[in-house]
Amino acid sequence: MKNLVGNALLGQSGGPTSVINASAAGVFIEALNQENITGVFGAVHGIKGILDEDFIDISKEDLDELNRLKNTPSSSIGSVRYKLKDPKKDDSEYRRLLEVFRKYNIRYFFYNGGNDSMDTCNKISKFFKKEGFDCNVMGVPKTIDNDLNVTDHSPGYGSAAKYVATTFMELFHDATVYDQPMITVVEVMGRNAGWLTAAAALAQYKGQGPDLVYLPEKTFDPEVFFSDVDKVLKQKGKVIVAVSEGIKTKEGKYVPELYQELKKDAFGHAQLGGTAQALVSELGNRFNVKLRAIEFSLMQRSAAHLASKVDVTEAYNAGRKAVQAAVAGVTDKMIGFKRVSSNPYKIKYVRIPLQKAANEEQKVPLHWIKEDNTGLTQDYIDYALPLIQGDEKAKLEDGLPRFAKLKKIRVQKNDKKTPL
Amino acid sequence: MKNLVGNALLGQSGGPTSVINASAAGVFIEALNQENITGVFGAVHGIKGILDEDFIDISKEDLDELNRLKNTPSSSIGSVRYKLKDPKKDDSEYRRLLEVFRKYNIRYFFYNGGNDSMDTCNKISKFFKKEGFDCNVMGVPKTIDNDLNVTDHSPGYGSAAKYVATTFMELFHDATVYDQPMITVVEVMGRNAGWLTAAAALAQYKGQGPDLVYLPEKTFDPEVFFSDVDKVLKQKGKVIVAVSEGIKTKEGKYVPELYQELKKDAFGHAQLGGTAQALVSELGNRFNVKLRAIEFSLMQRSAAHLASKVDVTEAYNAGRKAVQAAVAGVTDKMIGFKRVSSNPYKIKYVRIPLQKAANEEQKVPLHWIKEDNTGLTQDYIDYALPLIQGDEKAKLEDGLPRFAKLKKIRVQKNDKKTPL
Repeated sequence: MKNLVGNALLGQSGGPTSVINASAAGVFIEALNQENITGVFGAVHGIKGILDEDFIDISKEDLDELNRLKNTPSSSIGSVRYKLKDPKKDDSEYRRLLEVFRKYNIRYFFYNGGNDSMDTCNKISKFFKKEGFDCNVMGVPKTIDNDLNVTDHSPGYGSAAKYVATTFMELFHDATVYDQPMITVVEVMGRNAGWLTAAAALAQYKGQGPDLVYLPEKTFDPEVFFSDVDKVLKQKGKVIVAVSEGIKTKEGKYVPELYQELKKDAFGHAQLGGTAQALVSELGNRFNVKLRAIEFSLMQRSAAHLASKVDVTEAYNAGRKAVQAAVAGVTDKMIGFKRVSSNPYKIKYVRIPLQKAANEEQKVPLHWIKEDNTGLTQDYIDYALPLIQGDEKAKLEDGLPRFAKLKKIRVQKNDKKTPL
Repeated sequence: MKNLVGNALLGQSGGPTSVINASAAGVFIEALNQENITGVFGAVHGIKGILDEDFIDISKEDLDELNRLKNTPSSSIGSVRYKLKDPKKDDSEYRRLLEVFRKYNIRYFFYNGGNDSMDTCNKISKFFKKEGFDCNVMGVPKTIDNDLNVTDHSPGYGSAAKYVATTFMELFHDATVYDQPMITVVEVMGRNAGWLTAAAALAQYKGQGPDLVYLPEKTFDPEVFFSDVDKVLKQKGKVIVAVSEGIKTKEGKYVPELYQELKKDAFGHAQLGGTAQALVSELGNRFNVKLRAIEFSLMQRSAAHLASKVDVTEAYNAGRKAVQAAVAGVTDKMIGFKRVSSNPYKIKYVRIPLQKAANEEQKVPLHWIKEDNTGLTQDYIDYALPLIQGDEKAKLEDGLPRFAKLKKIRVQKNDKKTPL
């Protein structure tokens, strides 16, 4: 554990959430207050900004605007999907990162993202150590997918879950309004883990949710699905289905692959529709009723107006705790949450080795998923309810959210050569 | 103008909005307070409930729950899409309605809906008059499409517009986060009138909106569209497009008809995707960049958590004013809004002859649409901003909206024969 003096850098990575900027606010505001931190930078588009030496000077931003980041969705300094090569095979990118870190005397590095980002963070940390470069590296978790390992949950999930649950309740009122049979299929994000689709069960818990819920944790059997739908339709006249985009058959096929002809665009990219749409298209061949496919699309990860206060607070604190830990000499860890109790809800902020956080996807336990595909058990409800509590959103201006406006003044490029 | 004593009946009709129940609350709560009104009924699924004598006894509901209707989306007593026949050709349904009204001594009739509902309301009113049955008939407007005639705007529009503007702002942050070219096409409801798509211009006004906006009021030229997109893409690297579902080419074709093969399901129904999706599919043949199609779908008309306080208040008041007018002897009118000033925002509640309200669709004035398809003029902004002001939503319970729960105790069916 070394007490370092130098600059701090934050990068954001992966898909947006409603609260990734809340973590950024936590990192920035805490870092600006730390004596050992001489300058606070934001990497424009994550790793890409580092490779390009493209940094925002956070000390030039207004504190009011940094505070507004707490309620501004997505990544204000830009995100990236960029996977570094395996350093054992090709370490040229790592050498370049080291060069930049040396050049700008970056001694504190914070990376805010999901699985891939923690993996990146871990590799960078290990490489720097091997090269003898002192830099405290801390991961700050974020993902609407809630699939980061070891931690009880991840910032971003609570707000996305609140969006999914609230919206299912509202759709329930809309989709049951007519006196005619109807099937509504709603697609929720989550390629491998069904946490976000599971949040539809919170609407069920309120008696205003879907009738059927399909997560990728369980093999999807189309014939069982059609028979499930038929049963509910006969009983209620209306069916609402929540389906994860990532459900697969036992042959490993995604739903759009089953019911759509593979069409390619002029550039050879496959043009496949969504899971809900593919199911609705096949339902149309089996049920002579009104059908509707709905995708929550980008809204479920950017609806900051519907953020959970618990989530915003935890995301912000995760950023602050990461800085505090790094300044105290901690490195190579991700901030995580350990649940002390659900009722009353209490968590402890913990430090998880990056290696552990990055390596496996945390999935919904199979015994939390009801055997008959009608939803999740009370265990899930008890787990998830505390995460969606409270409202916190941007103040309104002209009736619309007043999001943060950063000046994004760039750190002057440092052209002096530093020894590799 | 007759002062009648008898029962009052409310029916809801057409597509849901976030505030149609606020108008119902206004009608119910005001009617329960009126001495001349002996009983207050809700027709289950509008006209259908009347034909079936299926009525909810509103006096049996808790006042707290009726107040909660103000912030509960969709139609709590059930809606319907049912067009009565032309009474000149076949008046059997009107005779049946008259029979039911007589049987239940309904002397006050309120119908809450859009164009078609006002037409229904008008025909019923005229038929009752011709038959010498005294019943004061009042229309209460609602439509997210904002296409009702004569009134400055309609309840439901402000909240839907607030959803569209807020969500475009959030999507703006999401869709511009990566450092790679991308085109996002977002489809907004509105078959013939572009009011709701126009609300995307409110996000532009905040500097966080779409680059291009296409309303059905203007002929859609695909080649101009592709060239518009190309221009923005070259300039900014990212393009966000707002498109109304109802845009048509000069040949009168909707977009999905242009770029999709007509596929039919097993029952012969056409399986056409949405406008955004069809555009994205063709964009894929022209631009080798990341593409995304988004539909606001049912969310834009049921997101009560994002309702405009102005809209909720006006919807509620429209219901109350309709009852007050009817009790004062007014009939054959729809409550409408006349704008006194935009800044400060001030309206007067007015009574519009049903005949006038029903007959024509109010569209976005062409001179409010920018010639180059980049948005709406300041005239539209000045018109729309007052309508999206303020927040009002259901209280939270377990972090989720506590919507109204009606007991829906049915009025006992009256089996005595009444003279036709």
